[in-house]
Amino acid sequence: MKLLKDKIVEEGKVLSKDVLKVDAFLNHQIDPVIIKAIGEEIADRFAEAGITKILTIESSGIAPSMFAGLELGVSVVFARKSKSVTLSGNLLTSKVHSFTKNVTSDISVSKDFLQEGDVVLIIDDFLANGQAVLGLLEIIDQAGATTAGVGIVIEKGFQPGGKLIREKGIRVESLAIIKSLENGTVEFLEGTPTYE
Amino acid sequence: MKLLKDKIVEEGKVLSKDVLKVDAFLNHQIDPVIIKAIGEEIADRFAEAGITKILTIESSGIAPSMFAGLELGVSVVFARKSKSVTLSGNLLTSKVHSFTKNVTSDISVSKDFLQEGDVVLIIDDFLANGQAVLGLLEIIDQAGATTAGVGIVIEKGFQPGGKLIREKGIRVESLAIIKSLENGTVEFLEGTPTYE
Repeated sequence: MKLLKDKIVEEGKVLSKDVLKVDAFLNHQIDPVIIKAIGEEIADRFAEAGITKILTIESSGIAPSMFAGLELGVSVVFARKSKSVTLSGNLLTSKVHSFTKNVTSDISVSKDFLQEGDVVLIIDDFLANGQAVLGLLEIIDQAGATTAGVGIVIEKGFQPGGKLIREKGIRVESLAIIKSLENGTVEFLEGTPTYE
Repeated sequence: MKLLKDKIVEEGKVLSKDVLKVDAFLNHQIDPVIIKAIGEEIADRFAEAGITKILTIESSGIAPSMFAGLELGVSVVFARKSKSVTLSGNLLTSKVHSFTKNVTSDISVSKDFLQEGDVVLIIDDFLANGQAVLGLLEIIDQAGATTAGVGIVIEKGFQPGGKLIREKGIRVESLAIIKSLENGTVEFLEGTPTYE
């Protein structure tokens, strides 16, 4: 998505060969105009997938999900992160490990809002190690629902998440895939990733 | 806002005389159609206020803020909650006490995204004890910015937050104000609250 790549080049900050900071428009300050375009682009890519629900995770997945949900005519559910989930028979839960923060969090979704028969589109801001998506996939499994695919704003193509999820046979649509952040420069991968 | 009040009556669950659960459309599952209408209604009420930025707090304030930001043509910044803020000279921080969870969290906003000269609209999903709004007001003060007012989706009129904020001379626009949840029934306050 050219608009997004231009924005990353203009406003993103490469902090190291692993870290791209995009808090000027995506995950701290949010530019509603570009996030609307992003949400609609994700929705367009899954327009024929029969989506009945969008599943994301707090906090930065919520904004693009809203616009995708509006476009697809479906509700958005966001998984909550918490240190320890309140005991309740009414929750779907899984664990998500963050490599950057080196903490494992429980995430949870109420059974009321994700059910057998749902066709689910997962949306998140970043795909790096893929742990958040794996946690959301487990929650969809627990609900007996179906995963239609994953829509990602920025994929770090040099980290293993994308390969991990695609090799499960799950469709991943990333609007920008970063090949490298070496030498303080953002290099994008064009086209669809292939794996040996 | 009639649409919102109807939705609260239809889909809200009164769990006790203090607790209204609206996680079917506002703060766990999100209905993009009604949240868009909510965001636009808040924007309309502050259309002449010269807003340059919307400030909210993760996670449930983000969705209505996106649509208000789009309508007003301004960016949205969400304050992050964390147990202990990373030491950094670049953060505006304050403390927010949650009476329901009985924990005090640090909240923070990067100085990059809130500055002197900004005219800020605070948006949040609920106003109850007012602690989150007080924390956000402190952050706006630290930035040397101006508060134009507060847009709230649901105000619990029987709790002290609304009075506390209005008595500081700050304009509060709540789209639904709940007078009482006694006997498992939602009773709304019509018009503007007055205090003795």
